[in-house]
Amino acid sequence: MSNTATFEQQLTALRDEIDDIDGQLVALLAKRRAVTTKVGLLKSEVGMPIFAPEREASLLKARRQQAIAAGISPELIEDILRRLMQDSYISQDASGYRCVNPDCKKIVIIGGDGQLGRIFGDLFTRSHYQVQTLEQADWPNSTDILADANLVIVAVPIRLTAMIIQKLSSLPESCILADVTSIKEAPLYEMMKVHNGPVIGLHPMFGPDVTGLVKQTIIACEGRLPEQYHWLLEQFQVWGAKVYPVEAHAHDQAMSMVQVMRHFSTIAYGYHLMTEGADIAQLVEMSSPIYRLELIMVGRLFAQDPVLYTDIIFANQDNIAMMKRFAYRFLELLEDVQLDDKQAFTAMFSQVADWFGDYANIFLQESKAMLIKADQLKKH
Amino acid sequence: MSNTATFEQQLTALRDEIDDIDGQLVALLAKRRAVTTKVGLLKSEVGMPIFAPEREASLLKARRQQAIAAGISPELIEDILRRLMQDSYISQDASGYRCVNPDCKKIVIIGGDGQLGRIFGDLFTRSHYQVQTLEQADWPNSTDILADANLVIVAVPIRLTAMIIQKLSSLPESCILADVTSIKEAPLYEMMKVHNGPVIGLHPMFGPDVTGLVKQTIIACEGRLPEQYHWLLEQFQVWGAKVYPVEAHAHDQAMSMVQVMRHFSTIAYGYHLMTEGADIAQLVEMSSPIYRLELIMVGRLFAQDPVLYTDIIFANQDNIAMMKRFAYRFLELLEDVQLDDKQAFTAMFSQVADWFGDYANIFLQESKAMLIKADQLKKH
Repeated sequence: MSNTATFEQQLTALRDEIDDIDGQLVALLAKRRAVTTKVGLLKSEVGMPIFAPEREASLLKARRQQAIAAGISPELIEDILRRLMQDSYISQDASGYRCVNPDCKKIVIIGGDGQLGRIFGDLFTRSHYQVQTLEQADWPNSTDILADANLVIVAVPIRLTAMIIQKLSSLPESCILADVTSIKEAPLYEMMKVHNGPVIGLHPMFGPDVTGLVKQTIIACEGRLPEQYHWLLEQFQVWGAKVYPVEAHAHDQAMSMVQVMRHFSTIAYGYHLMTEGADIAQLVEMSSPIYRLELIMVGRLFAQDPVLYTDIIFANQDNIAMMKRFAYRFLELLEDVQLDDKQAFTAMFSQVADWFGDYANIFLQESKAMLIKADQLKKH
Repeated sequence: MSNTATFEQQLTALRDEIDDIDGQLVALLAKRRAVTTKVGLLKSEVGMPIFAPEREASLLKARRQQAIAAGISPELIEDILRRLMQDSYISQDASGYRCVNPDCKKIVIIGGDGQLGRIFGDLFTRSHYQVQTLEQADWPNSTDILADANLVIVAVPIRLTAMIIQKLSSLPESCILADVTSIKEAPLYEMMKVHNGPVIGLHPMFGPDVTGLVKQTIIACEGRLPEQYHWLLEQFQVWGAKVYPVEAHAHDQAMSMVQVMRHFSTIAYGYHLMTEGADIAQLVEMSSPIYRLELIMVGRLFAQDPVLYTDIIFANQDNIAMMKRFAYRFLELLEDVQLDDKQAFTAMFSQVADWFGDYANIFLQESKAMLIKADQLKKH
């Protein structure tokens, strides 16, 4: 670049260089994708899981070292490689999966056209199982549809689950009966009552937007004859999911804390903002990245189906007492503020910090990564 | 690859190919970084802002199109380029900034060794201003330190702000007095009372981990003689920040909703989890990405200084009544659940959804991008 070049000329030349590098970048990523697709095909032939934690760790370590040697940020390289690996899981996913149990001739998904039902239907199909869905209109033929089923999965809205299960009294004895509802005690009770064969309660811990099951969790609550449904859990693992076994009551208690309580309190906060007459546009403009993230977590709920959330919240009357206790604790802590008792408040704070233990720091680190992401989302 | 190669051999060969591509990737990114650093130097010579929204948009558009043509995901390429641009803002940042007002001979930052004070001290220094900090030990010499100041910034903890401002009664008449506290009405009132020259209240909407001010917001509340501090706001913009002017009372009201209220309610939720005897390790294991994100937002608070949060919450007694109203609304909505009045609950939900308007969908989209990021953070 000559010294006499104008500022504009120099800037344009540098920007052209960047565009050229970015062009090479896209080409390189396309090449990478072609190779990872081959890996997926190769693995699917022998039924090896797509996600290999040790390979991931060693790959990241090598590139971090190279980045440091090249004078660029190792965090930058790790972030980019994690994003690439996530994408490659999706592409590998498309190559199909090993079928763990070829003896399973027919899977029926009740509510298989719903969001969650479709995800499972798709995965089973790509694992070479024969899948049939049973929707509302199909009930007149249900006896035929269910007569030769080896696995029946109930994937209907939470308010219909018990009623649908009660209709399944004449399944073949060896058929596995499973549900995917977000509560587990009640459906499991109904399934055990209606069916004498193998029973398992499942709670897939992901939303309808999931792109493949790699690193996703499926909670499994034992019902009856686990040795007969063991292959099903293995199939989930072939898809990349982590199976987390837990007792149904403990599951429901945990969910009341992280799911019901958080949904309810988020809805109440949205209602509070509206009722206080807050100016949402101004709040957004004035938000720091962390408050924007808070607002995202509130606002996202209200773009979704009210019935979905209402059903989850209203599904268990036992949660009401627990949520009331939250409101009273909230008022109790507010009393510290009113009495200007900073000492009591910080003492409580430190106690909770101790209770969180190592997770407090882990979450702080993770939130920093999330904030970097939130910053990137800003368009202006 | 020969057909007789074993599975292991084939996998190793493909993995070597991936490693080779990743090595080229790191080299390419180092090259990109070298060019963006040159752009930063060039821009700083003429004082052009680092962040150019139109260039960013056109760059992304071109690469998305190339990605589609190459059969890879345009979202993948956009995510990676946004991450790279964010990194390049940091490197460009290191090249220094244009000094908007060379007539400003001396800037004093009271509390300049604190987290926020250091960020501003560093930025002013890299913009070729002379910066002096005034810490507790320096107060005996404060008359000398402040005598020839053109700009004094109060960056002390919120509980000390009023007291420190009251000590600033003999600043030079033309000196700009500013504070960076997270409340604005009270400090602005104190500054106007103690000083007759130009006054401005600032609230930087970012945390101490910020890496450069590109795309960050600084809220500005007018005090007195804005034409005399106009250069300061321009300097913030040179650093890449967005200046958002708002009236002090409106600022404090908005902050009570997004900052005080959210902090308090998050702390109360942590206290609730502990008091209910929840098993945090199990909650984490059982979390879906969205609940993990919720837990991150709660736990991150407890890894930080309790005094910081206590001070923010206790700073304004006016907030107590508003927060009480939240608790009562929470109990009011809980009544719908107790009475099994789903209709009332969904009606309320839809009303709030209307109030959020377009933001609900925007936030839902953004939360999906955040969830992809949260998934990437998972180590197993």
